[in-house]
Amino acid sequence: MIKANDPTLKSWVEVPKNSDFPIQNLPYGVFKTDYLEPVAGVAIGEYIIDMVYLNEHGYLDGLGLPIGIFNQRYLNDFISLGKPITNAVRERLSELLRHDNSQLRDNKKDRELALIHMDDAKMLVPVRIGDYTDFYSSEQHAYNVGSMFRDPENALLPNWKHLPVAYHGRASSIIPTKVPIIRPKGQTKGPDEAAPSFGPTKRLDFELEMAFIAAGKTEMGENITTADAEDHIFGFVVFNDWSARDIQAWEYVPLGPFLAKNFASSISPWIVTIEALDPFRVAGPQQDPKVLPYLEYEGNHHFDVNLEVDIKPENADALTVSRSNFQHMYWNPCQQLAHHTVNGCNINVGDVFASGTISGSSPDSYGSMLELSWMGTKSITMKDGSERKFINDQDSVIMRGFAEKDGLRIGFGEVETKVLPSL
Amino acid sequence: MIKANDPTLKSWVEVPKNSDFPIQNLPYGVFKTDYLEPVAGVAIGEYIIDMVYLNEHGYLDGLGLPIGIFNQRYLNDFISLGKPITNAVRERLSELLRHDNSQLRDNKKDRELALIHMDDAKMLVPVRIGDYTDFYSSEQHAYNVGSMFRDPENALLPNWKHLPVAYHGRASSIIPTKVPIIRPKGQTKGPDEAAPSFGPTKRLDFELEMAFIAAGKTEMGENITTADAEDHIFGFVVFNDWSARDIQAWEYVPLGPFLAKNFASSISPWIVTIEALDPFRVAGPQQDPKVLPYLEYEGNHHFDVNLEVDIKPENADALTVSRSNFQHMYWNPCQQLAHHTVNGCNINVGDVFASGTISGSSPDSYGSMLELSWMGTKSITMKDGSERKFINDQDSVIMRGFAEKDGLRIGFGEVETKVLPSL
Repeated sequence: MIKANDPTLKSWVEVPKNSDFPIQNLPYGVFKTDYLEPVAGVAIGEYIIDMVYLNEHGYLDGLGLPIGIFNQRYLNDFISLGKPITNAVRERLSELLRHDNSQLRDNKKDRELALIHMDDAKMLVPVRIGDYTDFYSSEQHAYNVGSMFRDPENALLPNWKHLPVAYHGRASSIIPTKVPIIRPKGQTKGPDEAAPSFGPTKRLDFELEMAFIAAGKTEMGENITTADAEDHIFGFVVFNDWSARDIQAWEYVPLGPFLAKNFASSISPWIVTIEALDPFRVAGPQQDPKVLPYLEYEGNHHFDVNLEVDIKPENADALTVSRSNFQHMYWNPCQQLAHHTVNGCNINVGDVFASGTISGSSPDSYGSMLELSWMGTKSITMKDGSERKFINDQDSVIMRGFAEKDGLRIGFGEVETKVLPSL
Repeated sequence: MIKANDPTLKSWVEVPKNSDFPIQNLPYGVFKTDYLEPVAGVAIGEYIIDMVYLNEHGYLDGLGLPIGIFNQRYLNDFISLGKPITNAVRERLSELLRHDNSQLRDNKKDRELALIHMDDAKMLVPVRIGDYTDFYSSEQHAYNVGSMFRDPENALLPNWKHLPVAYHGRASSIIPTKVPIIRPKGQTKGPDEAAPSFGPTKRLDFELEMAFIAAGKTEMGENITTADAEDHIFGFVVFNDWSARDIQAWEYVPLGPFLAKNFASSISPWIVTIEALDPFRVAGPQQDPKVLPYLEYEGNHHFDVNLEVDIKPENADALTVSRSNFQHMYWNPCQQLAHHTVNGCNINVGDVFASGTISGSSPDSYGSMLELSWMGTKSITMKDGSERKFINDQDSVIMRGFAEKDGLRIGFGEVETKVLPSL
């Protein structure tokens, strides 16, 4: 067992009940304040540990950390140090923060300067993202979409159970929580219309996804096996892959989604390490037909992470419209990475690999409005009585993820995005 | 007229007949030598001007260039200075290099240190590429592919003449000339096979493309009009979008090409500025049906650039297998950029936007082996008598581009890539 994961550990930092950030989590992020340039931080309870301060004041001595490693806009250089070092940092933090360690706890000045309340910080995208890939790995989602757009009898395309289908997305428009998006405009054409028309999307949608962040760089020609894949995974975030369904329907044949997706994707601020998720491993589904040898795997590489989506109209309370789970994946991250690199495609630290929309088998676990409203054929009633088939202007979409087991809860925080009207 | 484009200008640097790099070109690149770290250079004749040396020795004074702007691995910061400055640098170089300017010509030491023979340099990818987009904008290519895979009567999909179809590609695997690629492996399944199999691609192909490099950054929500688009285009390169046709056929429905493309794309080393291409503008095709207003444009934004592809077997002479032209585009770069950003998608300096395979109307102008061999139904005979339907191991594929008019030739140099066998 990883020592920092010990469920009996308590911290001298107060951690509220149901916090996403107990001492067993210690996720990494990048934050700024009114007086601090962007620096690396680690979440605990309602606080952010300023990693620059800790490193400069000797609390991380002996771990082989270069000077200035946390004093950067992005975590890429830190992640590039490799798992033996990044995991040792997590272990050291776990030591420093445990209730019976007085080193930082009893140094009033250091404690006050090293711990910043989350309310005083703004979270940023934590890694410089070279490339972003979006998979399509939830069977129920692929089945739902195939049923709606094609045929329920042949909902899954012939390749779907043989390979983790994916496409490349846009890295430039990945944004952190609390940055609003603007309703995109584009071409749409209904089946009965003679020509396309132009205007704001009428079918703005979220996609409930998780994403992993690459920990290791490979060279062109190299491939990563399923057995080695987790060494190349730093951690996970919750990922909202914004979509404009009407633009998508008109543009996507034959080369896939483009403007329907590339205007924005929102990510949760904290990268929860794969090591912190270790207690929440579960077995994946039996894969039938049998996969090709390079996609076979041993062990449990699915994770039991509860996922929720709220819609919050401007002047009303939020309503949870979907409750799904990261374990509803047919293809796990190790298979995704093995497939992605089997042709020699190289990856870089900080690359983002999203899961695709994660839908469970019950209708209230579907991960998009497209599925929840079944292509706009039914509505969801908000708490103020208004109805939604897709997302309205001024709505905020809030996604959450948390794993829970034996009294231990490891969470991702929220990713919240408000939709502003088209310009 | 742009002064540096004056066709009567001569340089004191010897420029061989049919050189791609007369004084009217002055393209930008990044090179290294045995004793120099990567720095910015400009091509003239058979030489590279070391821009660091010129800047440090006062030859570029008064242009507002920051110290160290050329002493970088990538041109992004230089390009970010904006067109008024980058164009002023080209004008200054044109002045310095003209036959009657003695300033550098007659300073033996500076001349010898500032001019490096191309044989002594290795060219690198010149920009840090945030995102790479591949369009599909040549009508003949789309028609050929549609005829082969679907139906000659309905070869173009319904959206093709309404919007410049595109998808996101992989930025990490874009490589410079003279870097070999390794034949990718992957899943393939023929129509008569019960299950997919795994192995090296049997249908490795090139795609003859041009690409433009973004000069300007936009914010999310902003869009670029066709009228403003050229301000956001720094210049052009020749682009070989390597493809594995058998992998592509099995994987690409419904989300587009992925592993069939993301193992490698090769680019020519010199970015020829859009200003240098100004004399080679031509009108584009009449677009029918009429495009939506945001895709309308005024003026000539197509370019008459000859494109050639050679295949060179390991121990035989090269054969030119395709002669195409950049003007065979239905959608021009301004329309591509206007479409790409009409939904508010943001772009960054250094982003790459490739044209898609450029095929002319005659079969010897098709830009891929898929089309030249018509899906493998006919062969091309090499000079050593061997035959090609696709690309063999140890073959080199060499692409060239050059514009020629009234005795002036502006070229791109070559992008040459050797194919090594699968590991």
